[in-house]
Amino acid sequence: MKKSLGRKTVVHPAPIFVIGTYDRNKRPNAATVAWGGICCSDPPCISISLRKATYTYENIMENKAFTVNIPSEKYVKEVDFFGIYSGRDVDKFAKTGLTPVKSDVVEAPYIEEFPFILECRVIQINEIGLHTQFIAEILDLKADESVILKASLIDIEKVKPIIYAPELRKYFGIGHFLGNAFSMGKNL
Amino acid sequence: MKKSLGRKTVVHPAPIFVIGTYDRNKRPNAATVAWGGICCSDPPCISISLRKATYTYENIMENKAFTVNIPSEKYVKEVDFFGIYSGRDVDKFAKTGLTPVKSDVVEAPYIEEFPFILECRVIQINEIGLHTQFIAEILDLKADESVILKASLIDIEKVKPIIYAPELRKYFGIGHFLGNAFSMGKNL
Repeated sequence: MKKSLGRKTVVHPAPIFVIGTYDRNKRPNAATVAWGGICCSDPPCISISLRKATYTYENIMENKAFTVNIPSEKYVKEVDFFGIYSGRDVDKFAKTGLTPVKSDVVEAPYIEEFPFILECRVIQINEIGLHTQFIAEILDLKADESVILKASLIDIEKVKPIIYAPELRKYFGIGHFLGNAFSMGKNL
Repeated sequence: MKKSLGRKTVVHPAPIFVIGTYDRNKRPNAATVAWGGICCSDPPCISISLRKATYTYENIMENKAFTVNIPSEKYVKEVDFFGIYSGRDVDKFAKTGLTPVKSDVVEAPYIEEFPFILECRVIQINEIGLHTQFIAEILDLKADESVILKASLIDIEKVKPIIYAPELRKYFGIGHFLGNAFSMGKNL
């Protein structure tokens, strides 16, 4: 018997994505979002949602492009900083000391110190309510050699991504290996 | 210096959502998806993406409703089973022994054994490519008492959700607490 808790936006896990954009003066910005995820395999697409009041919303409307930067847990303080303050008020790259690198495929910067990043071009804008959803095509994934396994796969255990618990407002690391997908369910 | 790996649909973490639906004969089905996430705070909404070929796509088009069931790691084999086989070919509830419960707010079943679930009504359908994205309003969250903290918050450490690594095709548990959001970044 389950208890009704009402209309809550809670899923586990929620991701932590840091969104890289340029403003109209080509100044790089970074903002942390948890509302998003992959939304299509072909063309490869990701969706993120933003409030219109954010600087990143304004920047994406200007350039129709952004990067999704996947942080390692050692950058959790910088990630939280990126989520608290607005790029309107502070130069977030100067403050954190992280390095913006101009993407060679879209008009957006990525974060050099994060283990892997996606370069994305907006293809749909969906108005939902408080949040606007941007659907963007993934034009390239770039990764540090240190997290790349053979066959060009990304090793999540080397990435050490950050997991977000909405509402609780807590960050967690990833844990132990549970099993192989499309495999362990065959023995049921 | 990052290495270009091309157009890949990889993010860390990706979620594991089990989608509950009824078919046209009111037979319950469950399917595992990793393409989705929360997409709006107000109205509270979640998006999931499905290929048109799936039974769940057909069921959602029929009822314009589904549940999102968040599994605990102890159900990882059942979750994988739900992702491998089609409800067209097998009665997945009969096979796993899990219990479908009819939602009191939407025309969809939820899974009694999973720690918390969202009951959702479709409000937008976005064609992207191979996948169709369903945006759905969260009408209620229902949870087991065993995972509810005071102030009606859901305790992720009791839920023990499953994290998915796309492309690697591996499941992981959640790990150690890293810090409090909207807090630790202030000390930067």
